[in-house]
Amino acid sequence: MNSLYGGITVEGFRVLEIKQSVFESNDREADRLRADLKKDKVFLLNLMSSPGSGKTTTLRRTIAALKDEFRIGVMEADIDSDVDAATIEKTGAKVIQLHTGGMCHLDAGMTRQGLEGLGVNDVDFAILENIGNLVCPAEFDTGSSKNAMILSVPEGDDKPLKYPLMFSICDVLLINKIDVLPYFDFDLEACEKYVRRLNPNMKIIPISARTGEGIDEWANWLREQIRAWNGD
Amino acid sequence: MNSLYGGITVEGFRVLEIKQSVFESNDREADRLRADLKKDKVFLLNLMSSPGSGKTTTLRRTIAALKDEFRIGVMEADIDSDVDAATIEKTGAKVIQLHTGGMCHLDAGMTRQGLEGLGVNDVDFAILENIGNLVCPAEFDTGSSKNAMILSVPEGDDKPLKYPLMFSICDVLLINKIDVLPYFDFDLEACEKYVRRLNPNMKIIPISARTGEGIDEWANWLREQIRAWNGD
Repeated sequence: MNSLYGGITVEGFRVLEIKQSVFESNDREADRLRADLKKDKVFLLNLMSSPGSGKTTTLRRTIAALKDEFRIGVMEADIDSDVDAATIEKTGAKVIQLHTGGMCHLDAGMTRQGLEGLGVNDVDFAILENIGNLVCPAEFDTGSSKNAMILSVPEGDDKPLKYPLMFSICDVLLINKIDVLPYFDFDLEACEKYVRRLNPNMKIIPISARTGEGIDEWANWLREQIRAWNGD
Repeated sequence: MNSLYGGITVEGFRVLEIKQSVFESNDREADRLRADLKKDKVFLLNLMSSPGSGKTTTLRRTIAALKDEFRIGVMEADIDSDVDAATIEKTGAKVIQLHTGGMCHLDAGMTRQGLEGLGVNDVDFAILENIGNLVCPAEFDTGSSKNAMILSVPEGDDKPLKYPLMFSICDVLLINKIDVLPYFDFDLEACEKYVRRLNPNMKIIPISARTGEGIDEWANWLREQIRAWNGD
């Protein structure tokens, strides 16, 4: 197929048009999905951030670090376009593109549709790359095992003040693009201070998805979470 | 008052808690607001972008460039926090902080509440700094005279592919942070090509709000729009 915008030819991965969920209670549906995933020993990571903070590049690094230990499947959610799925496909990981048709977030019902489209029989580490948005995705439990977010250095250290819910509901914060710290006024200590007021137990890992700095620590954190999830 | 997160003391500007709109048709309410603003010779700019693309810094430059020609009033919309209003207040421009209480966008009714809170009797150039979000604000006509958006270099040149609606509904695109172009893989030509497919007539102005590059062209564009709005 050809994308309307980029003229990109999509081969080798499916594009799924996600439908609005019909469930009355998203929280209940999320708990149900989480229980199913736990039973099936599938760890689901919900990865959120602003547009352009480096979710896809971070995923490429993550897949490279963990693909020999886990069978990884990625759901690339986007309003439109298939550029991210095309990028992830090159890593060799299983991937599906989810189109939300204008919707600004994914809820648990939509995530389940995505997982069914991806197929998780041969996956033990599933990743949802959520819509680039610091507001709406924070309001909907996707049923994930853990929530991760990326804040990139160029966005500024004051973002926890402005998007408190997102920083409150995530288990881990990756501070990405630390290789460009010299060119921006970003105070790591100040940022961590703002985060700790909202979420004292949040794991904070500074990384550069471009240079690979910090990826080992991130991969270690993921290993621990996946093992704990599976009761290993 | 003290903010819950930053412990910031707010003095000299009002903080308005915006209520959800009750109008059946936002488009009709937006047209009504636009007609009222036209009659009152108030030009309203709706400024949108991702979190951290430099809206507030760009506004500071814009105010410095135009404050001797126009009476400027700024509405700083945020889910929470007052950091942007505090920054803008230092420029000497009239400013009000709008808190949306978790809402991811402003519609025309909410914008009218903001304008009433700001007071536009002594303002001929009003600016709404919308919520940092490339998705939801694009879906709601605020009643503005013109829509502007900022895309910053670190976010990447592929954003028009991923957030087509936002790039379609804006009259002008500021490509900000061009001072850091050497440190990022951002192809200005490719970006413009993606934009033109969605919005052939969009004005595109590369700027650096930090160094001031491009601000003259941006100020000129605004001057022309405001004069045309007032029939001068």
